[in-house]
Amino acid sequence: MTDKVTREARIARDFSLVEAGLDSGSLSNVRYLLNYSLPPADIADLIESSTPPERQVIWKLLKEKYRGEVLSELAEDVAAEFLERMAPQELADATAELDTDDIADILQQLPATLTAQVLHSMGAQDRLRVERVLGYSDDIAGGLMNTDTVTVRPHITVKTALRYFRQLPKLPQIFDTLLVVNTEDKLLGTVPVNELLTSDPATQIRSLMNEEPLSIAVDTDSKKVASLFEKRDLVSAPVVDSDGYLLGRITVDDIVDLYRDEAENHIMERAGMDAEQDTFAPVLKTQRRRAVWLSINLVAAFMAAAVIGLFEATIEQFVALAVLQPIVASMGGIAGNQSLTIMIRAQVLGQINRGNIGWLFSREVRAGLLNGLLFSVLVGLVAYLWFEHLLLSVVIAMALVVNLFIASIAGVLTPMFLQKMKIDPALAGGVLVTTLTDVGGFFTFLGLATLILIG
Amino acid sequence: MTDKVTREARIARDFSLVEAGLDSGSLSNVRYLLNYSLPPADIADLIESSTPPERQVIWKLLKEKYRGEVLSELAEDVAAEFLERMAPQELADATAELDTDDIADILQQLPATLTAQVLHSMGAQDRLRVERVLGYSDDIAGGLMNTDTVTVRPHITVKTALRYFRQLPKLPQIFDTLLVVNTEDKLLGTVPVNELLTSDPATQIRSLMNEEPLSIAVDTDSKKVASLFEKRDLVSAPVVDSDGYLLGRITVDDIVDLYRDEAENHIMERAGMDAEQDTFAPVLKTQRRRAVWLSINLVAAFMAAAVIGLFEATIEQFVALAVLQPIVASMGGIAGNQSLTIMIRAQVLGQINRGNIGWLFSREVRAGLLNGLLFSVLVGLVAYLWFEHLLLSVVIAMALVVNLFIASIAGVLTPMFLQKMKIDPALAGGVLVTTLTDVGGFFTFLGLATLILIG
Repeated sequence: MTDKVTREARIARDFSLVEAGLDSGSLSNVRYLLNYSLPPADIADLIESSTPPERQVIWKLLKEKYRGEVLSELAEDVAAEFLERMAPQELADATAELDTDDIADILQQLPATLTAQVLHSMGAQDRLRVERVLGYSDDIAGGLMNTDTVTVRPHITVKTALRYFRQLPKLPQIFDTLLVVNTEDKLLGTVPVNELLTSDPATQIRSLMNEEPLSIAVDTDSKKVASLFEKRDLVSAPVVDSDGYLLGRITVDDIVDLYRDEAENHIMERAGMDAEQDTFAPVLKTQRRRAVWLSINLVAAFMAAAVIGLFEATIEQFVALAVLQPIVASMGGIAGNQSLTIMIRAQVLGQINRGNIGWLFSREVRAGLLNGLLFSVLVGLVAYLWFEHLLLSVVIAMALVVNLFIASIAGVLTPMFLQKMKIDPALAGGVLVTTLTDVGGFFTFLGLATLILIG
Repeated sequence: MTDKVTREARIARDFSLVEAGLDSGSLSNVRYLLNYSLPPADIADLIESSTPPERQVIWKLLKEKYRGEVLSELAEDVAAEFLERMAPQELADATAELDTDDIADILQQLPATLTAQVLHSMGAQDRLRVERVLGYSDDIAGGLMNTDTVTVRPHITVKTALRYFRQLPKLPQIFDTLLVVNTEDKLLGTVPVNELLTSDPATQIRSLMNEEPLSIAVDTDSKKVASLFEKRDLVSAPVVDSDGYLLGRITVDDIVDLYRDEAENHIMERAGMDAEQDTFAPVLKTQRRRAVWLSINLVAAFMAAAVIGLFEATIEQFVALAVLQPIVASMGGIAGNQSLTIMIRAQVLGQINRGNIGWLFSREVRAGLLNGLLFSVLVGLVAYLWFEHLLLSVVIAMALVVNLFIASIAGVLTPMFLQKMKIDPALAGGVLVTTLTDVGGFFTFLGLATLILIG
């Protein structure tokens, strides 16, 4: 037996060939590889890692029938470039074969009038199933749901069920659980396909059925859905309304996407950005988006400057204070963000409750004070060797302890406050804590200096 | 039909009852709920969101036979507390029923001598399958792999295959793909279980088989494995050695865990921490861990202070410089971290290559310069209104443009440099970029002030 190149190795090779072809301009080869070798997810990757001019070339070379799947794999920001130039009928055709939730995701990016036109261009049956999902926001179970459920009644036998499957044109790609419903589509139970395969064909479905099936309420928060899939090792789960009637199901591939987006989001949010932003966005769009975050920071910076401004007279007499002041502020910022980060993670994981917040707060304050003492000795010593002024070293050492104390309190309380105000602590927490530790640090250091060195 | 509480609602209720029981000390109820109602993942959640004394109570109440599964769900840092007190035989018994990769993950946390003792306490067959996986680090496919594959030969019929399944004591919980191998266990192809269900029982497996099956080389990086599951919507995938012989398979539940850990890691790394760290770690452990990160930052802060120290004479004449200097530095820090973040995300997604890095670099520099110009006007104006000194406003405006220019260059080059040095840019990038923009900001601002205001 001769060794073949594996499938993924071939795809990786063709991916590089397309990149090279785009650089050199030998487009007939690129066209072939795009339409006959690369899967949609790889074409989406290719587009996302291309510059804007190359993207237009790829899009033009790509057959219309593949465009829907590629669109559903693209980050919103990138998809928008192509969506705005597609006619409603073109979009309806391109997305016809997609999963319901993927079509809904794309349509939700469009202006409402355009969505209506695309829906109008669909076949009646498609329109119905898409409209059903479109009603749900994509941050609840309903928005993640597909309508490709396979259901049977409880009284039939395994043999009848298997015969029924063979008569279906196609089973869904992910099919691990058979859903058992009554004549009104109320969910009665579930049977793992596994058990179907190992059971006597004469067995009744009812006797294999899990009568306390895991089902997801349609309005469940999507983060909770993801956590359920993770904890229960699910491959798919039925979605029901408040009366227990079956509406659809969620499959693990969408949960993997959700977690991947969350991971991306956690990278991006520390600079005030989100996962849907395009790496290769044009200059002006980039500049405008970043200006917002810079403006917020500018307000914070001016507040810190204003605090320093209160002590101009003190600095005039002791210029060393201007040299040392960033140390107190920046150590506080780091310590505050350490406390903040452990709190944000705990909030995301739902670990905080009334019974443990007191313990956590006290632990943070004590760890902050201990590090405050440790670094105050170190920084005090260095300051003394540098400026040979004993009282100055005492001032910076005291300010450091106080600011690391402020930092631990700010780090714990800020995310709790932001969560109460329904503002994402991961996004706004950093700026807020840093502002508090900057203001606190400058005020403590320069204030103590005024009292001890001047007064 | 009366409405029952759904399974997840019952678990959530019992979870709260356990929390309340631990607070009030009514432990007999807690013992019952832990051992008869809550699934292992929820017990792990409960432990992770409890304070250290409560954890010991929960652990003692938990039956030994459930401890293995709970251990496998705990973050390493938390699991370590319990592992260090378990005898080798106790650990071997507790983990006997776990998936191979989960046992390996636990054993890899132990000292080598203890691992050998636990292996020695296992049955011969268990030991063999665990040792096979233990050989692989957990950041490659081999470490994610289980040995619970179901294989058939290509010449048998669907009917024979189905009969074979019924004779097995149990099919694996996730069973979406049948693996077809030759007599030497070389992977020949795969058949989706779907197709098995819808095919004529007389069909030969060979004719249903995908002859270019998706298989994963055992040494594939685990991040690449995860990305493959995400792109191909996989539920499971066979793992092969370099000659194509079947070694095991990876299932999507482990990929979901991987992405969840990655999301957690991206939260934690911005404060120099990682996902395995315990939220409720004791004070001294917390203090020591954070001191490392604070020390690194302290070095950076002293470098910035040293730069300011060069210009003491200038500040003595213009104290306003001490007031305004943090603005230039902090705006640079924010802008630098914006560029850094977009680069880190692009690196994680593998979007950067020789063909587009030039475009990206130029886009970053131009966006940085544009925002530099925009904010220099704004900050210059405010500085003028504040200090009524024209040249001072010109100095801060110029410094801001230069520092945002420095920031964009540092933001792009730092992560590329760190990647070359095999240092994680997401961990070290922030400190490095901030140091560069602090040093650059203070030097430019105070340097220009010396030239223009004094010179």
